[in-house]
Amino acid sequence: MNRKELTEQIFKKKTFLCVGLDTDISKIPSHLLADDDPIFAFNKAIVDATAPYCVAYKPNLAFYESAGLKGMASFEKTVGYIKESYPHHFIIADAKRGDIGNTSAMYARTFFGEYDVDALTVAPYMGEDSVTPFLTYEGKWVILLALTSNKGSHDFQMTPFANGERLFESVLKTSQKWGDDQNMMYVVGATQGRMFEDIRKVAPTHFLLVPGVGAQGGSLQEVCKYGMTKDCGLLVNSSRGIIYAGSGEDFAATAAEKARELQAEMETELARL
Amino acid sequence: MNRKELTEQIFKKKTFLCVGLDTDISKIPSHLLADDDPIFAFNKAIVDATAPYCVAYKPNLAFYESAGLKGMASFEKTVGYIKESYPHHFIIADAKRGDIGNTSAMYARTFFGEYDVDALTVAPYMGEDSVTPFLTYEGKWVILLALTSNKGSHDFQMTPFANGERLFESVLKTSQKWGDDQNMMYVVGATQGRMFEDIRKVAPTHFLLVPGVGAQGGSLQEVCKYGMTKDCGLLVNSSRGIIYAGSGEDFAATAAEKARELQAEMETELARL
Repeated sequence: MNRKELTEQIFKKKTFLCVGLDTDISKIPSHLLADDDPIFAFNKAIVDATAPYCVAYKPNLAFYESAGLKGMASFEKTVGYIKESYPHHFIIADAKRGDIGNTSAMYARTFFGEYDVDALTVAPYMGEDSVTPFLTYEGKWVILLALTSNKGSHDFQMTPFANGERLFESVLKTSQKWGDDQNMMYVVGATQGRMFEDIRKVAPTHFLLVPGVGAQGGSLQEVCKYGMTKDCGLLVNSSRGIIYAGSGEDFAATAAEKARELQAEMETELARL
Repeated sequence: MNRKELTEQIFKKKTFLCVGLDTDISKIPSHLLADDDPIFAFNKAIVDATAPYCVAYKPNLAFYESAGLKGMASFEKTVGYIKESYPHHFIIADAKRGDIGNTSAMYARTFFGEYDVDALTVAPYMGEDSVTPFLTYEGKWVILLALTSNKGSHDFQMTPFANGERLFESVLKTSQKWGDDQNMMYVVGATQGRMFEDIRKVAPTHFLLVPGVGAQGGSLQEVCKYGMTKDCGLLVNSSRGIIYAGSGEDFAATAAEKARELQAEMETELARL
């Protein structure tokens, strides 16, 4: 999915919500456990209930891998189901991959060739040749970690280099030689608040994938105030705050309600543009 | 496997070779393709042939994931086979994972709880809480990326911070507050040559996992000269240079020959201690 198609969806549906499918078998409603594939059953119900309120889904690979082969089958079925039933939703595999060139090329083939998702999160530590193999697929996106939502983001990402640039700024600047705002986004945590001002100085037009609203405590208003571009430029993710909002048989309706609330806030923000 | 057990194996077998199982279905000998699980058949033959000459195996997850569920089944079978048939070999899952705390905890459960490998490569970009969940498993190791073997290592890892430390040095120093030389190793590429001197100033006693000998052009002698500790402190990996050395029906014997050559060089280096 290209940028034009993504922004069309955002303005048509008045939302830039991404629902994170961090599906943990130990947290899903007990009545689903009798199902052949409880993880897929849960995801399908969440997707069907939240699709009107979001433009993207982000399955987090860790949660599927941890269930072994069965988990990866649930991942594959989930991606297949979204693509078939909601073909205008953007699918992000949150896998934070990145390795030497020939290995990154294998990962690219897996996620873009086999699973055929729209985007993959990638870690920048290993530099150019670990990222560029992902940029050779038409209509696919690299979402590079820049400034993450966790406490550990202060360990290295915020540290200034001798030239004054902090590591995350150097990642933003250097990576713009590898790709552009049509095939590369950045992860910037909602918990970083006013740091979005600094991000936009270095990456004024790129889409940002913003985790950390909800369970992690980030503010949607602040993210929008400092991070929004003329064509929105944001995909704001909520995982636990939506998918585990309810735990009974009506979990999907409760998730839809939470997604609708965020959609309404986003509609207000989009109206300011 | 703890450090004492690992070094005992190294000195008993006079080798610190790690064989990288970067098994690519498009590169394995054609006569194996008729097998039910060609990737496992290839790995089994390579492991049986090279086991006397190495102390560790390192399957690279990208190569298994790219073959989908079937590939992950081959990975699982390979790990199971090594554990059963060669229980004194150290198994490294080369997956370069790392995410916010709750997600890293899931990855840790997958690799240490389910697959039960000895070590996992981890990317440091997201800082402390992305790494520490992997350090809570007794007898298991984090192998943190420090200075990688690829060209892209120059993009960020070599850049000096304002305090004079380069990023890789900051990773080495900071991460020593999270774990110690009994549960943490570092990835340092053999292509970095004399940089091992600088590495040893900051991490004098940690084991280093050293890729990049062979196909990538690193020198074993240089690595040993500048990187060896009193108890060896090195696991030197070769993947393509061993496993694809031959392409005929005698591929395993050819791989064994290459592994034996490296073992002989390593025996010479160990004799200097």
